[in-house]
Amino acid sequence: MDFDDILSGARQELRRGTIVPACLLLLRRPGYGYALIDELDQLGFTVDANTLYPLLRRLEGQGMLVSEWNTEESRPRKFYRTSPDGERLAAELLADWRRIDASIHRLDVGDPR
Amino acid sequence: MDFDDILSGARQELRRGTIVPACLLLLRRPGYGYALIDELDQLGFTVDANTLYPLLRRLEGQGMLVSEWNTEESRPRKFYRTSPDGERLAAELLADWRRIDASIHRLDVGDPR
Repeated sequence: MDFDDILSGARQELRRGTIVPACLLLLRRPGYGYALIDELDQLGFTVDANTLYPLLRRLEGQGMLVSEWNTEESRPRKFYRTSPDGERLAAELLADWRRIDASIHRLDVGDPR
Repeated sequence: MDFDDILSGARQELRRGTIVPACLLLLRRPGYGYALIDELDQLGFTVDANTLYPLLRRLEGQGMLVSEWNTEESRPRKFYRTSPDGERLAAELLADWRRIDASIHRLDVGDPR
């Protein structure tokens, strides 16, 4: 396993946990899966449909997202939106993120040997 | 599954990916497993021995950490230290972290409905 593979694995692990808060924050404006993949990608959270769609369904099942079908266009699309509980979850995760960031920062500036 | 369980799962996922960079940064000063658990815990990265020890061995196998036995005390202890490749990995992950943080920040300040 060379350095690039190790880096790529560690990067993926670093990003994985941020997909949930990113989705909850993005879906404060209703959105559908395919467009969300695009928005996430532009923010640097690359995630494929096979990962995102089950995640959206899981978050909906947990009550963190609500959904409705938009049938106004030729192709009906399921729009998701962050629920009040989802907002609360996002806020808690953001607070956690800030704490982790402060710890990482303390470590980063700690003088190396 | 109630809100606290959902939050606890999402929190764990958020922290999981940060353990590797945290270890690499901490081990710029040589340290052994048990003390490292304590240091991580003080920084808010709670991780148990069953998770940390295999992780340290994996990072050593990948050449990101080097180790040596300290036999000066009554109980020999394996000390780990971040290798030059490990420093490079930590630097790349920190850069990635900054990018993710910037994205999260952009999302956070985005006006909700």
